[in-house]
Amino acid sequence: MAELAHNSWGKTDVRLSKLRRGADEDDFIDITARVSLEGDVSFAHTAGDNAGVVPTDTMKNTIYGLAQDHLTDDLEGFASVLAGHFLEKDWIDSAEVELSARLWQRVTPTGFIGGGSELRTAGVTRSRHGTEIRAGIEGLVVLKTTGSGFAGFPHDEFTILPEADDRILATSITATWRYAQLPEDTTSAWQTARRTLVERFFGDRSESVQHQGWMMGVALLDAVPEIDQVTFRLPNQHHLPFDLARFGMDDAGIVFQPVSEPYGDIAFTITR
Amino acid sequence: MAELAHNSWGKTDVRLSKLRRGADEDDFIDITARVSLEGDVSFAHTAGDNAGVVPTDTMKNTIYGLAQDHLTDDLEGFASVLAGHFLEKDWIDSAEVELSARLWQRVTPTGFIGGGSELRTAGVTRSRHGTEIRAGIEGLVVLKTTGSGFAGFPHDEFTILPEADDRILATSITATWRYAQLPEDTTSAWQTARRTLVERFFGDRSESVQHQGWMMGVALLDAVPEIDQVTFRLPNQHHLPFDLARFGMDDAGIVFQPVSEPYGDIAFTITR
Amino acid sequence: MAELAHNSWGKTDVRLSKLRRGADEDDFIDITARVSLEGDVSFAHTAGDNAGVVPTDTMKNTIYGLAQDHLTDDLEGFASVLAGHFLEKDWIDSAEVELSARLWQRVTPTGFIGGGSELRTAGVTRSRHGTEIRAGIEGLVVLKTTGSGFAGFPHDEFTILPEADDRILATSITATWRYAQLPEDTTSAWQTARRTLVERFFGDRSESVQHQGWMMGVALLDAVPEIDQVTFRLPNQHHLPFDLARFGMDDAGIVFQPVSEPYGDIAFTITR
Amino acid sequence: MAELAHNSWGKTDVRLSKLRRGADEDDFIDITARVSLEGDVSFAHTAGDNAGVVPTDTMKNTIYGLAQDHLTDDLEGFASVLAGHFLEKDWIDSAEVELSARLWQRVTPTGFIGGGSELRTAGVTRSRHGTEIRAGIEGLVVLKTTGSGFAGFPHDEFTILPEADDRILATSITATWRYAQLPEDTTSAWQTARRTLVERFFGDRSESVQHQGWMMGVALLDAVPEIDQVTFRLPNQHHLPFDLARFGMDDAGIVFQPVSEPYGDIAFTITR
Repeated sequence: MAELAHNSWGKTDVRLSKLRRGADEDDFIDITARVSLEGDVSFAHTAGDNAGVVPTDTMKNTIYGLAQDHLTDDLEGFASVLAGHFLEKDWIDSAEVELSARLWQRVTPTGFIGGGSELRTAGVTRSRHGTEIRAGIEGLVVLKTTGSGFAGFPHDEFTILPEADDRILATSITATWRYAQLPEDTTSAWQTARRTLVERFFGDRSESVQHQGWMMGVALLDAVPEIDQVTFRLPNQHHLPFDLARFGMDDAGIVFQPVSEPYGDIAFTITR
Repeated sequence: MAELAHNSWGKTDVRLSKLRRGADEDDFIDITARVSLEGDVSFAHTAGDNAGVVPTDTMKNTIYGLAQDHLTDDLEGFASVLAGHFLEKDWIDSAEVELSARLWQRVTPTGFIGGGSELRTAGVTRSRHGTEIRAGIEGLVVLKTTGSGFAGFPHDEFTILPEADDRILATSITATWRYAQLPEDTTSAWQTARRTLVERFFGDRSESVQHQGWMMGVALLDAVPEIDQVTFRLPNQHHLPFDLARFGMDDAGIVFQPVSEPYGDIAFTITR
Repeated sequence: MAELAHNSWGKTDVRLSKLRRGADEDDFIDITARVSLEGDVSFAHTAGDNAGVVPTDTMKNTIYGLAQDHLTDDLEGFASVLAGHFLEKDWIDSAEVELSARLWQRVTPTGFIGGGSELRTAGVTRSRHGTEIRAGIEGLVVLKTTGSGFAGFPHDEFTILPEADDRILATSITATWRYAQLPEDTTSAWQTARRTLVERFFGDRSESVQHQGWMMGVALLDAVPEIDQVTFRLPNQHHLPFDLARFGMDDAGIVFQPVSEPYGDIAFTITR
Repeated sequence: MAELAHNSWGKTDVRLSKLRRGADEDDFIDITARVSLEGDVSFAHTAGDNAGVVPTDTMKNTIYGLAQDHLTDDLEGFASVLAGHFLEKDWIDSAEVELSARLWQRVTPTGFIGGGSELRTAGVTRSRHGTEIRAGIEGLVVLKTTGSGFAGFPHDEFTILPEADDRILATSITATWRYAQLPEDTTSAWQTARRTLVERFFGDRSESVQHQGWMMGVALLDAVPEIDQVTFRLPNQHHLPFDLARFGMDDAGIVFQPVSEPYGDIAFTITR
């Protein structure tokens, strides 16, 4: 006997941009959206009956259709509108919407420079039981040349890493926080959150990625009172000292080899 | 007050290959590994005390070190050895190891052709409370030119997708199953699982990706009795009919535009 | 004074698939196309006059439009038709078409497995002065566990690479050849070329990537008499021995670390 | 008879960063390097004799070794030193070095934000016959919401693109220029070049990508007198109007679908 224990279906990587002409300058919003629904569509699986299967093409169209009136800098608001729309169908139990916005830096009233890896993210999950609203940041690449060490760790037969009192620390910050209460201005809350993360990454000496991240997270909870939980993922973008002594040189310890793989992968959640 | 609700740390994208010289032919195993640990290292976060923080560099070294004696085609076995090794440290609560093996096709006793997207995966999570063993397949790209439709779905103002009695169906299969009991020969079990997925994808007519996946999953549970649960992720690799009538041509319906984004994203879990 | 020394414009990454229903089985062709035109459109640059600028959107449409009648396994033939079509416009001096076909492996009369990195390529450049026809292979990933060395190289202060009598050799073959005369059956010629490359890679012991490639190229010129020139690019996919002696282990020399970057990059052209 | 018509060998994707401690602040340089050599190593190909084959591993080591003393913001200078080093071997005919630097934005004296796609590039080719020095920019993503049209183009049976008086124009600028004479301060020259490209992209209305690029190129030749030639590659990052009228909506023309593939691909070279 087989049983359908869980199912979801949705549309991923929906790219959408919206241009708002202003008197003095244009706004340009540029997002990637993902919608995912859950509901009682077990007959679709077991019997090929699609009566409840909202096509993922319809989901895509809905995102474009509702964007015209509803997409603003308040990403959380647009995600809520979308999730609410899908939940109107009574056989849908839960709708999850994830948005990520590329950040374009304004150069002129109608001109922008892009290309950065940093994304502002927002997520809303609405079900019959309630609504969860999340926001976050992804791909915020930071590096500091001092103010970070890693020492005092346990040793075993496979440990050859030297202790380091001072090293290059680099990561690509992904942080996702949950709003216990929605801030009045989600964009301003996001900017406060971002500023806090940046200030603490560069401002606090740390003894590990974990230590650095903890201080960032505590400061984030302090800075934005509506947040009740934040999850970090902080890959360690290693810059390995390149040993020049092998070539008979005096090694000044200033030449490094950045490596993409493998990488240290640190994840944690901080709550109030 | 802030509290550390969850934490893990590990090493990701550890690439390793192992060559075993044989009398008649060489074996070549080629994996990417991820290790992730959980444990009481809250002092590392809150106080910068690394006494319990096994360095991710040590994790990497351990994978290479233990591979010499323990890595075989039984990926699940190697993952278990690795997880068990990390759990020997008494402050570690849980160790998770994920392995994925590239599949090299033998051409000569010492020669192989690679480059395929398909991966055999294995995962083991060991904690003080028990062990979970998983296996799976990733990136198995399949396409059929007939035997798949999608019709009878709900319509609303954003629905323009035509009903299709017969369409191209393509996906990149990711399936991960859990072993209630470890098969005697994990490689043979994996091959049975793969063969079953392929046979059912091509053998069964389906009314949706969900329908196709359900039939594959039921057959998988039938074919490998040690499996008690399987999770699928089946992205719909759309091949959109390209409208040639716009150019005044007779459109024979045989020219398509494959698109990468956006894509339909179907996920579900089947249990016994 | 500024002068327009060279210009081209085109459409890249046009993905197209074509399905041909057969009595016994279906054919599925899956290509990515690039078209690039040259011609006297200097007024477009200097004066914003687009009278000669065939839109790249039109190029895309043309590829789809002509595919219905003209795309077959003879990629070189379809590329020629396309290039000829664009050259009909008398202000176009030269049209270049590059096609690459994903290789789907037939499993059933209507079912295929894909996902491989290997591509069959074809290129045609037609101008007022003549036509050049090329074919090739890309992403053919091969690895052998023996039959390759690298020794006797020059040493200087930065040389620490040990000499190797026997090592793993892996590469992703890109080869592009020029037809002095078009083979009657381009698909059969391509298959002969591929088989020759594979046989010689695995069949001949080599002292370097260069040496291996030379033998492959000479054999290719032998096997397909219509080819008068072939260019190879053979990145060295390094598998670095991982030193286990550091951990106090007996190192059996069977555990390797494959690395993606940096990589050795060998390129050369062989003519008759 | 087969003949070796051309050959080169080198190392690609060498990642290197250099940290220079200063009294007031640290500098951080972060490059990716490629070295490629040509020379008479035909015996390596035809006879497996590696006497002249500088190992690509040695090339990599040389880049790290010489970086300690020679790598500064003057990328062109470091590329020249590297190329000159390899040319000291008398059987090497030509050495080409390409560098690309990621741009880290300073936040504190020892802290930086990265993650941008933009690269500063430099290239030097030195041979027995002379030296060519190039510089450039890659991945500079720019978008303007007005000030760009595309109309008056030729029509044929495959043309359906509507004429546009005003459209979103976005591209990722790649420009590579040649120095007839080396500027005294290559970093300052590069900054002037970048500023000129940005100012002209946003400042000039254009009738096509070609037109926009021409104006940028002419301005670049004006702004940096040492440049005698510049080559652009300007992929058109299309933002397609998404038709909302299909849903019975009033379409305000403000919602777009950005697409990655296919894309228009415009390339040209401007000389004095």
